[in-house]
Amino acid sequence: MLANRRQGIFKGDVYFVNPNHSQILGEPCYPKVSDLPRPAETVLVAIPSILVPEAIEDAGQAGATAGIVISSGFAEIGNRTLEEELVRVASKYDIRILGPNCLGVYDPYTGMDTLFLPETKLLSDGREVVATPRPRRGTVSLLTQSGAFGCAALDYMAGPHGIGIRRFVSYGNRCDVTESELLEYFGMDTKTRVILTYLEGLSEGRVFIEKAKEISKKKPIVALKSGRSESGMRAAASHTAALAGSDQIYQGAFRQAGIIRAQNVEEFFDFARALAMQPPGLTNNVAVVTNAGGPGIITTDALEASGLHVRKFPSRIMSKFSNLKASKKLLPVLSGTNPIDLTAEATSRMFALTLSILLDDPSIGGIVLIALHHAPTILDDAVGMIAETIEKRTKPVTVCDMGETEMAETMRTMFEKRGIPSFSMPERAARALWALIYYGRYLRAHNVTERRG
Amino acid sequence: MLANRRQGIFKGDVYFVNPNHSQILGEPCYPKVSDLPRPAETVLVAIPSILVPEAIEDAGQAGATAGIVISSGFAEIGNRTLEEELVRVASKYDIRILGPNCLGVYDPYTGMDTLFLPETKLLSDGREVVATPRPRRGTVSLLTQSGAFGCAALDYMAGPHGIGIRRFVSYGNRCDVTESELLEYFGMDTKTRVILTYLEGLSEGRVFIEKAKEISKKKPIVALKSGRSESGMRAAASHTAALAGSDQIYQGAFRQAGIIRAQNVEEFFDFARALAMQPPGLTNNVAVVTNAGGPGIITTDALEASGLHVRKFPSRIMSKFSNLKASKKLLPVLSGTNPIDLTAEATSRMFALTLSILLDDPSIGGIVLIALHHAPTILDDAVGMIAETIEKRTKPVTVCDMGETEMAETMRTMFEKRGIPSFSMPERAARALWALIYYGRYLRAHNVTERRG
Repeated sequence: MLANRRQGIFKGDVYFVNPNHSQILGEPCYPKVSDLPRPAETVLVAIPSILVPEAIEDAGQAGATAGIVISSGFAEIGNRTLEEELVRVASKYDIRILGPNCLGVYDPYTGMDTLFLPETKLLSDGREVVATPRPRRGTVSLLTQSGAFGCAALDYMAGPHGIGIRRFVSYGNRCDVTESELLEYFGMDTKTRVILTYLEGLSEGRVFIEKAKEISKKKPIVALKSGRSESGMRAAASHTAALAGSDQIYQGAFRQAGIIRAQNVEEFFDFARALAMQPPGLTNNVAVVTNAGGPGIITTDALEASGLHVRKFPSRIMSKFSNLKASKKLLPVLSGTNPIDLTAEATSRMFALTLSILLDDPSIGGIVLIALHHAPTILDDAVGMIAETIEKRTKPVTVCDMGETEMAETMRTMFEKRGIPSFSMPERAARALWALIYYGRYLRAHNVTERRG
Repeated sequence: MLANRRQGIFKGDVYFVNPNHSQILGEPCYPKVSDLPRPAETVLVAIPSILVPEAIEDAGQAGATAGIVISSGFAEIGNRTLEEELVRVASKYDIRILGPNCLGVYDPYTGMDTLFLPETKLLSDGREVVATPRPRRGTVSLLTQSGAFGCAALDYMAGPHGIGIRRFVSYGNRCDVTESELLEYFGMDTKTRVILTYLEGLSEGRVFIEKAKEISKKKPIVALKSGRSESGMRAAASHTAALAGSDQIYQGAFRQAGIIRAQNVEEFFDFARALAMQPPGLTNNVAVVTNAGGPGIITTDALEASGLHVRKFPSRIMSKFSNLKASKKLLPVLSGTNPIDLTAEATSRMFALTLSILLDDPSIGGIVLIALHHAPTILDDAVGMIAETIEKRTKPVTVCDMGETEMAETMRTMFEKRGIPSFSMPERAARALWALIYYGRYLRAHNVTERRG
């Protein structure tokens, strides 16, 4: 917080409170919140749990309205009485409490950063490496019950392929501020385009789902819900005292509320990326366009397994392809009909032509484009031609280029800069398209006018 | 080939044959194979398909015994007569043919490299980037029906997290040398520890499965089989003229033969990594050790979904933990019983102690270790202590550290250098453990003595 204030990122004041110090990090330190020269709005509490209620009492008397309690040692280790005491004191002064047992808030726009985890660590070889990074500004907000998951998420969202973050809230034991309130808040936040939420259980499931139903009409909510298996539920109960409840109940509730459920951590972020970049799709019929036969089949399998349909194209599409073949704009060897295999000799122009035909046809709800850079004909100019074709339409497209070397990374980054989510694995591109269409169908079912992503 | 010969990697001779040139790349060029100064053993054919049988005829007369036919334009585009002609000519001279319509062979040990795809490409900004890399020497061999998939695989296996390669064979239309023969060959190859195979369909399924049954007793075979869905099958039929057959039949056959089936491309390589590094497991009961509650639950769900069991530990294990808590070697807040959450305050020593107890207990078949580096107590010295504990035992362990930043990459790389497969996603670590146990159970069912991985 102090570093952010000194750098001018955080515009507010930061005061230190601790009875045992007169200075902290070169700043004056006060014995109590009520001793501060100006009344504090928010108190960030990171002291032994037993002292927390007293500190909140003092902050309340001094006029504070919000408390972020990082300290653990409450209900999560069975100390429910202490947590109840905390809530009682806070409500006496109308202080809203986030936590306890949480990481709090990270917001790259305001510089609010309550994460206590060190940004860098010193390795035994003397190198100082980034350990818990702070993601750059983005449009995706994250709501997490697990602090550890939250750290991992920040690490992922800040990474070389990171999507950045709008706001991060780790709410821990949610003794006062609930996940439903936070969800509502993100729903209203204009900078948040996609809401991610990691859950082990809901404290007030019905309220959450009701709010989610409305918010989903404005912006997508992606949930990763753990505690699915019996052993997982048992673990969740001991971790955050979460009443996990049957996974089928969650599954049904999510569906009702248009919440897009990620099957694993990777999907959680993949869906966020896709939904932040691309428009929702409206129909389950999708197309696969590829310059690589095998990966095209793999993609088709993954789409079908998700409940999307990779059907033969109608004859009006096929005759357009025939015309292009006849005029030598597409290769005669072009084979198949959805997946359409442009073969390893496909040029950027052939990709663009094929995409435009498919995107313009009302039967197609979205496209997975497999453009492997290994093909001799594919250079980085492909990205511009493909992106231009996609940008002119309002249907979702996800891209896959496989591999981990320089060219693959370069191509994927170029696609992403043009707003086209790009994945290293065909199944990930397929699942991301599924998320876009799943969401689009929720919007349509609720008569929400299509929006450009 | 020539570059490899000039660098002394490839020890054989390389001759060029082309009637229109007298020199290629500064080397003499001969009109026909039969004009070469010495008889060629292997001919690598990359000429228009219509000319291939004639070239093979000439090579046969000159005493060649093997032909790798890169050229496409055979059965895959319906040109079956030409392919039959090729086979007829080859068999007349006892030449074995790999391909046609394939990439051929890459072997970093001998420098045999028939890949025609350029290693680097020139981008429009003038940068020359690696496009189709050649992986370093490794212990995993890959057999692929799809050339494009093969390129992508090489790109992945050569990447910053790549596992290297023993031998790569892309067999394309397999007009002569079959996948079963190649499988058998890899089975006998002492440098190959794990066999990967990408399939769209088998030409002689029964033979392949019978051979796989025997080879699986010596080394693991991992298969990625596409054409699972109906649309995928249709695409496979048009791609490699593969008779895909019902996916359930493949599923059953794979199970019989101990073939470990990857559900997606990511798993394909993850399984290879795990099987090349760790010993197989013997029982379905596994443990999750974590310093991060949420990711521990996610892992538990993934293990259970794979059919493994994350059961409460027997009381003999719990009493060992109690003793360690009493003597302050483990934290009192340590919670749960499988997953065992050592909490964010867990030290390297606590990890090592917990692992040793679990690995020594006969009820535990393997462990997923979630060691998030974000925890303030975790530094890189953790890797050594954890690795030492694991190396002393013969049970499989997979590790997950989440995130993409420097410290995460460093920790994962350090684990891998110690032979412990390390993943960025908890579900991937869980599935890799599943593969190790699935394989171990095949070995046990066939009374194969346990081997150290």
